[in-house]
Amino acid sequence: MTETAWQRRTAPASTTELEHVDAWWRAANYLSIGQIYLQQNPLLREPLEAEHIKRRLLGHWGTTPGLNFVYGHLNRAIRDRAQRTLFVMGPGHGGPSGVACAWLEGTYTERFPDIGQDEQGMQRLFRQFSFPGGIPSHAAPETPGSINEGGELGYSLAHAYGAALDDPELLVACVIGDGEAETGPLAGSWHANKLLNPAADGVVLPILHLNGWKIANPTLLARIPEAELVALVRGYGHEPIVVSVGADDEDPMVSHARFAEALDDALDRIAQIKSDAAAGALEQRPAWPMIVLRSPKGWTCPDEVDGKAIEGTWRAHQVPLAEVRENDEHRRLLEEWLRSYRPEELFDERGAPRPNVLGAAPAGELRMSAAPVANGGELRRALALADFRADAQQVDPSERGAHSTGSTAVLGEWLASVLRDNPDTFRIFGPDETASNRLAPAVYEATDKQWNAETLPVDEHLAPTGRVIEVLSEHLCQGLLEGYLLTGRHGLFNTYEAFVHIVDSMFNQHAKWLESARKIEWRAPVASLNYLLSSHVWRQDHNGFSHQDPGFIDVALNKSADVVRVYLPFDANTLLSTADHCLRSTGYVNVIVAGKQPQPQWLTMEEAIEHCTRGLGILPWAGTETEDRPADAVLAAAGDVPTLEMLAAASLLREAIPELSLRVVNVVDLARLQQEHQHPHGLPDAEYDRIFTLDKPVIFAYHGYPWLIHRLTYKRAGHEQLHVHGFLERGTTTTPFDMVMLNELDRYTLAIDVIDRAGLAESHGAARRSFIDARDRAKAYTREHGADIPEVADWVWPGAASGS
Amino acid sequence: MTETAWQRRTAPASTTELEHVDAWWRAANYLSIGQIYLQQNPLLREPLEAEHIKRRLLGHWGTTPGLNFVYGHLNRAIRDRAQRTLFVMGPGHGGPSGVACAWLEGTYTERFPDIGQDEQGMQRLFRQFSFPGGIPSHAAPETPGSINEGGELGYSLAHAYGAALDDPELLVACVIGDGEAETGPLAGSWHANKLLNPAADGVVLPILHLNGWKIANPTLLARIPEAELVALVRGYGHEPIVVSVGADDEDPMVSHARFAEALDDALDRIAQIKSDAAAGALEQRPAWPMIVLRSPKGWTCPDEVDGKAIEGTWRAHQVPLAEVRENDEHRRLLEEWLRSYRPEELFDERGAPRPNVLGAAPAGELRMSAAPVANGGELRRALALADFRADAQQVDPSERGAHSTGSTAVLGEWLASVLRDNPDTFRIFGPDETASNRLAPAVYEATDKQWNAETLPVDEHLAPTGRVIEVLSEHLCQGLLEGYLLTGRHGLFNTYEAFVHIVDSMFNQHAKWLESARKIEWRAPVASLNYLLSSHVWRQDHNGFSHQDPGFIDVALNKSADVVRVYLPFDANTLLSTADHCLRSTGYVNVIVAGKQPQPQWLTMEEAIEHCTRGLGILPWAGTETEDRPADAVLAAAGDVPTLEMLAAASLLREAIPELSLRVVNVVDLARLQQEHQHPHGLPDAEYDRIFTLDKPVIFAYHGYPWLIHRLTYKRAGHEQLHVHGFLERGTTTTPFDMVMLNELDRYTLAIDVIDRAGLAESHGAARRSFIDARDRAKAYTREHGADIPEVADWVWPGAASGS
Ligand SMILES: Cc1ncc(C[n+]2csc(CCOP(=O)(O)OP(=O)(O)O)c2C)c(N)n1
Ligand SMILES: Cc1ncc(C[n+]2csc(CCOP(=O)(O)OP(=O)(O)O)c2C)c(N)n1
Ligand SMILES: [Mg+2]
Ligand SMILES: [Mg+2]
Repeated sequence: MTETAWQRRTAPASTTELEHVDAWWRAANYLSIGQIYLQQNPLLREPLEAEHIKRRLLGHWGTTPGLNFVYGHLNRAIRDRAQRTLFVMGPGHGGPSGVACAWLEGTYTERFPDIGQDEQGMQRLFRQFSFPGGIPSHAAPETPGSINEGGELGYSLAHAYGAALDDPELLVACVIGDGEAETGPLAGSWHANKLLNPAADGVVLPILHLNGWKIANPTLLARIPEAELVALVRGYGHEPIVVSVGADDEDPMVSHARFAEALDDALDRIAQIKSDAAAGALEQRPAWPMIVLRSPKGWTCPDEVDGKAIEGTWRAHQVPLAEVRENDEHRRLLEEWLRSYRPEELFDERGAPRPNVLGAAPAGELRMSAAPVANGGELRRALALADFRADAQQVDPSERGAHSTGSTAVLGEWLASVLRDNPDTFRIFGPDETASNRLAPAVYEATDKQWNAETLPVDEHLAPTGRVIEVLSEHLCQGLLEGYLLTGRHGLFNTYEAFVHIVDSMFNQHAKWLESARKIEWRAPVASLNYLLSSHVWRQDHNGFSHQDPGFIDVALNKSADVVRVYLPFDANTLLSTADHCLRSTGYVNVIVAGKQPQPQWLTMEEAIEHCTRGLGILPWAGTETEDRPADAVLAAAGDVPTLEMLAAASLLREAIPELSLRVVNVVDLARLQQEHQHPHGLPDAEYDRIFTLDKPVIFAYHGYPWLIHRLTYKRAGHEQLHVHGFLERGTTTTPFDMVMLNELDRYTLAIDVIDRAGLAESHGAARRSFIDARDRAKAYTREHGADIPEVADWVWPGAASGS
Repeated sequence: MTETAWQRRTAPASTTELEHVDAWWRAANYLSIGQIYLQQNPLLREPLEAEHIKRRLLGHWGTTPGLNFVYGHLNRAIRDRAQRTLFVMGPGHGGPSGVACAWLEGTYTERFPDIGQDEQGMQRLFRQFSFPGGIPSHAAPETPGSINEGGELGYSLAHAYGAALDDPELLVACVIGDGEAETGPLAGSWHANKLLNPAADGVVLPILHLNGWKIANPTLLARIPEAELVALVRGYGHEPIVVSVGADDEDPMVSHARFAEALDDALDRIAQIKSDAAAGALEQRPAWPMIVLRSPKGWTCPDEVDGKAIEGTWRAHQVPLAEVRENDEHRRLLEEWLRSYRPEELFDERGAPRPNVLGAAPAGELRMSAAPVANGGELRRALALADFRADAQQVDPSERGAHSTGSTAVLGEWLASVLRDNPDTFRIFGPDETASNRLAPAVYEATDKQWNAETLPVDEHLAPTGRVIEVLSEHLCQGLLEGYLLTGRHGLFNTYEAFVHIVDSMFNQHAKWLESARKIEWRAPVASLNYLLSSHVWRQDHNGFSHQDPGFIDVALNKSADVVRVYLPFDANTLLSTADHCLRSTGYVNVIVAGKQPQPQWLTMEEAIEHCTRGLGILPWAGTETEDRPADAVLAAAGDVPTLEMLAAASLLREAIPELSLRVVNVVDLARLQQEHQHPHGLPDAEYDRIFTLDKPVIFAYHGYPWLIHRLTYKRAGHEQLHVHGFLERGTTTTPFDMVMLNELDRYTLAIDVIDRAGLAESHGAARRSFIDARDRAKAYTREHGADIPEVADWVWPGAASGS
């Protein structure tokens, strides 16, 4: 720890300091309202007229004064303690607050030089807000200092904890909306305080923004007795500091003094815990402080409009005065409201903030809007990645598939080296599935699971610090990883394929963040978010239908092609090569789907690298085409199980119909199937046509829902000849081969389809019938023995040596 | 209330009763292990041999003894009090428990007559479990008494509360895994106790199954001090009853006595609260009891195997002894384990449960596995639905689109009547968006929002009972509705289109449940789950990119065509007709997407009904084709905004190129686009071809991601001529028309595309250029005024009277 971090300050804030905070607060409130309403006359130098008002009034006032209040107070404390701090704004709809504060701090002008700290800049700032061609209404990537857009509520606390990991001197102040607190993801995030380590990680200070209301309803937490709320917070493992401000007749300076004291109290307690932790003197998990801030929603806006209470009610949520262009009385109220902040005391002649406004604000990188961690791409350093070739599976080209290995276990070996070589910038997250997905035991030779709750002698691989974090909340895993990435680090989320749907919406939001961030010059790219989806649809034999769902790929590919990549490596070497590629990349979401069960290994490492580099390609050893005998049919596959079945189908056909010329293709990078203009990875039409032919039947065995392949290829010339087999939403607890049979993805069905599409049904009826019989036999065997028939279970590729 | 409900019983359980419970417990444990391991020799009449063991050992033991324990104890209490009870098993992977208990109660044999209560039946019961052609390993629809499959963890408590709504005499005993409790959805569900009403609704008794472990990790709640756990539970608003059982040297009878007392205590407290509530004597929201049950994971299984601790550790999670076929020592341990339950005391000569096993169990419908509410379809009565024609929007065919109305507001009027006419079988759920989505104010004229937390004078429409439930957790809304439907009632979930992705995975699980349930004869169909997705992608002007996502339709259509329906009504009358249809249906998930903003109204009620009945059709008044002049191009649309833009494009074209013969088609029911064999709603090819033509260009304006339309139609003859415009994942805070322009779905782009595809680019270059100019003008206007250009914003359909 540096000398300065985590200082205690026992002297209470001075009146001057509090006056500065109040000036900040009034200025930020003024600027927030300006953004919502004004397109001209930003400093109210003239009486307010209808034409000064925007034509569409968009934005959310209700949460904003509370956010500005907290921000102003944090500023004082940061300056006082020189405490590096990140601000996470849960109610991201309070976007005007983030913009206002960044402008006051000068960061806005640094990031967007055309928005100066003067009258013209202020007018532009106001005008651009929620305006076509301008900036969004939320705490989006455009907002300096933000890592949490907060449009979809519920992720602030998880983001905050993710940001705090491995940054022991960072304070993350996280404002949580009391409505936001009702969401499942937020409710589940509180327990993250048992995962972080007091010495090795930063500190999250949750501030529950109890303004009492959501959009149109009170919040649950505002409507339970305080004793219950306090018990809840204690139950979460926090020491609550409850503070109420803004009662109707209270002098704001009294509110300020009360909150400043609460905040100092919280920070002093944190300082104490931190120094105990550094000294190794913590006896047990500390009860970190948190603040419950009760304040009126819409605080400082008009009490009443048209006879209805506004301040302190849900009616303040969005735009408290809706008809200011048309309704003179509303406009008068707005003007009064704006002038109540005494703008002339806050902004100088030119329109710049006066010194009193900034009197308590920190400078440089201590400004929360300029916090380097909020632009993590700038801090990110590339991972040190050991050569994955060292973990290669030995594959003898003359005996491909002869040996079975679990691919994720092999990946685990390499990930262990990544963990070792990057001891504070790479983490693995999982919902209690890292062992189930077979990355363990390998990874636990390199690291432990980080756990700061109680431990028992029977525990294995749990430790106060460790590079794997497991908690049975997919939301929390995802949120922690997002927070970790957005502040400049790297990571991997491993989870069951079916249940990654739990975070569909978080993925959507993150992908949108990445997409927006690409267009913002000052945002440097952050490391990609890497998913390893294992325990996939085809091998959930023991868990059944609820665990069988490959649809996340479809969700992922609906997002912008600029930011999404989907990989289906089909053995350990292709998985290693893919993972290495993904861990080097920035700005993407990489979805890797790979099975954990023992499976045949197909490609040598050299072949795997070449294949993955191309993203898709012909497996020459599997087909029978020659220069003189071009392929009669293309057998394509994407995914480990489909490729296995397709290769088995190829071997059946090679034996049964030697004169049939076959081409076998494997696709690792799904986006290659799209056209160049659809996706940066899209294969040029000419190349696609060369591989898939223009007129030969293509039988495609795909890991997921078959229609996805159609939607990726519908503009390709040969699309009419493309016949896709995939998951047909049929499943249960059964054997692996029964699963593929249920979904018509089994080797026999594939081989029959090739026969039919190649027009050989008549001429090769006997072979066709023998496949039907074999399939019936296989099915009957499962019903009798509860296991797969040996001719399937023990099947191995006949060996390229004896083949083409 | 009936005389018998909610009785207090102060006499403690007798030793005989507890012996019966113990016998039940041993029997259920025995039967659970039998399911996991045995395919022969079910009663251990012979020494255990390798061939008696299944070849693949699948299933989860760890949670099972705890579930059986709770079930046995509940039985005693139910019998004692004649208390109608539903059992919700959070850790649904403890499926063997549900099956074992149902078999003991005789329900299994009633439901599946070939599984008798005798040795042969037991053998079949064992064999079928997790066996090909048999039953799933989880508490799936196949399990009598289950409404919660619990494969994807986190929804038990929400399901329990949903089941309890409007059933004031029902007790719902909900076992929550301590791992499950870490999930966001579960963590957010606790506060549902503030939504239910003590007098009008049933009671949920949460039982936290604190067995200490998940798959491979301890649980957080097991590793915090008890004081913290108790505070947490109090913070949730419950009175905790903590009970620990199963310590190493404890006589099971002591464990039984302790838990029986805890359960009686809980039920007596509930009885007291219930009678206070009935007497109107409740002073405030009651602190409902809940039970924390500490027990060893895998309780009663071998302590140690191969030198590793099993009982009471994570290693007991699945199959504690993995090699019983091959390893003699393991097999010996298994036999010892099975015999430790003394099967000969539990099953008679024939193999039926002996009287002592059933001595404390209830009969008839009090058996939890036979609870009628667990087969809600049998209880369901059709809704009383007022004629929606009464709420029709008046549309004058000579002035279509002349008046704008918000369609959801009109739906709200009709829903108000549904609420009135079905005062205890229909509910609306929403995450604080029912007003935002404009169903209110209308619905609040018929009902209130149910709220049993504190209230204030300023509150509006909050009341102790009411038919709308709002809580800012999409998970809780969905879970409550699922629980409500699965127990025989009806409902609607209204939510923002983008954020319905939050429950993608819950939707998946529910759709899978419905799909599986269809094949189970004794499961009567439940009411459909109806989504109203409003505040949709095109009209999130004030919220921006994070709120713009139409992808839920894609997720929905990946599930089985047997259970999913998607509707895109394009005005109020089509919305009314669609909603009426959905509320009458059973066994589906109906997704209705409809905007809330004022929009032109197009069809008369009669036309709307006819159109919705067909699901798609030509709008003759909008096109220009005649018998002699067949259409040169088809202008198709699905969704309200796309239809508006397409109609505007048609009007532009009609004016600019009168000689162009146009057909305008609207699609309300998306599945109509699929083929007959793909979806029950699929349009026969001949009809499709008649509407979309075989060779004319079809310009299709679609609400969501354009590729969905391709994937639905890729097998249609005219597919090559189909050109779809939709959401291209481009968005921000901007004007409505700027949004459609950003995504190339605007009238000008559509009109230009028609010109190009119809080969008129050369001949009608001037018209084409005028559209480009108009588009540029519109764009520039938004940048200047922050609003849409009047020629767009004020555009109205020129009037069918003057048209074709
Ligand atoms: C997951 C989610 N569901 C619904 C919404 C719609 N929404 C926007 S703001 C809001 C109320 C938020 O209340 P709160 O968190 O208390 O914020 P504040 O009162 O500070 O505005 C809701 C429900 C949302 N943004 N995210
Ligand atoms: C949402 C979700 N994530 C992950 C899993 C994988 N999983 C199956 S069982 C289990 C552990 C459950 O622990 P707990 O709820 O304590 O159940 P019990 O100890 O009673 O078996 C996990 C993580 C799952 N089923 N659902
Ligand atoms: Mg609030
Ligand atoms: Mg557990």
